[in-house]
Amino acid sequence: MTEMIEKQSGVAFYLKKGAFLKVIDPQGEQVSDLVAFSANDKREKLSSGKTLDFESTLFITKGHHLWSNRSQKMMEIIEDTNGRNDFLLAPCSPETFHILYDNPHYHPSCFENLEKNLKPFGIDADDIPTAFNIFMNVQLAPDGTISVEPPMSKPGDYVLFRATMDLIIGLTACSAEQSNNYSFKPIAYEILSKP
Amino acid sequence: MTEMIEKQSGVAFYLKKGAFLKVIDPQGEQVSDLVAFSANDKREKLSSGKTLDFESTLFITKGHHLWSNRSQKMMEIIEDTNGRNDFLLAPCSPETFHILYDNPHYHPSCFENLEKNLKPFGIDADDIPTAFNIFMNVQLAPDGTISVEPPMSKPGDYVLFRATMDLIIGLTACSAEQSNNYSFKPIAYEILSKP
Repeated sequence: MTEMIEKQSGVAFYLKKGAFLKVIDPQGEQVSDLVAFSANDKREKLSSGKTLDFESTLFITKGHHLWSNRSQKMMEIIEDTNGRNDFLLAPCSPETFHILYDNPHYHPSCFENLEKNLKPFGIDADDIPTAFNIFMNVQLAPDGTISVEPPMSKPGDYVLFRATMDLIIGLTACSAEQSNNYSFKPIAYEILSKP
Repeated sequence: MTEMIEKQSGVAFYLKKGAFLKVIDPQGEQVSDLVAFSANDKREKLSSGKTLDFESTLFITKGHHLWSNRSQKMMEIIEDTNGRNDFLLAPCSPETFHILYDNPHYHPSCFENLEKNLKPFGIDADDIPTAFNIFMNVQLAPDGTISVEPPMSKPGDYVLFRATMDLIIGLTACSAEQSNNYSFKPIAYEILSKP
């Protein structure tokens, strides 16, 4: 069954080892931030630094694994129809809009949406790691300058993950104008026992 | 006073707000992994994802800040005579040598050295974040492939940091062959009240 994450919101759920998670961009040009924790010990969680190290590439896609802070495989990427994701940048937060985008007003954010939805699972704001930013199109200049460009995802593009341990997942429909070309769209997802 | 971190080892210490930390490569071609925690609340700690986001560059050097998971400035880089550091890759760990370098035997690692030295400060292994890898020369191919090359640091090169909050610092002389061109050298450091 396809579940919808409404624009600028998030969800959290359990994902059993061996189950599949399909994250779909239903309308195109939208980003989804994913974080993962071991359901058996929440101190084990997604690690950008471990993943970039063990996979030896900036661009995590089909065939790669997402790794934990304890050097264990958490998820495998089985399919990735768009092929562009980011694992460098922290989830957008209230401070992102103040500091980076010079917006002094309240703004919804992936960080708040992850915090709110992970709290019932006993996970605190301080424990939220750098997210795997599905469909996020981060471009790098030769001098290392990072820029956030509109996603290249088309309607129906998806990333299919297989859980390699029992997990708690946090997942958002991104709240930042810069990440989704000022579109604020939903994200769809499916939990499947077979791909 | 100059303190020495012997090869393949580490230290941890308090650094007061406003104090300066000078990390020196005394012989050249050596890497030092740095992690930082707020001394007032250890749940606030260094964040690669926040730093890359707020500084909008892969190459953190003079004029940049290191940021916390709470979107606060922890340290400012006042001087950087070499100019090449890494903030992508997790500290080398026992698993790094098993998984990435196919070495089944015990190998010293920055992660173990950080763990051992931070434990007296009440910081657990699971809480150690991706380190700021001083002098580490990570090169990126256009397709995103990450390679670890010998450091470009010369004897006496240093990075000078100013603490912008009260900190607990963990610091190593790197244990990985690939990070320091198979040299296993010490790292020197100084804590200064003036630069």
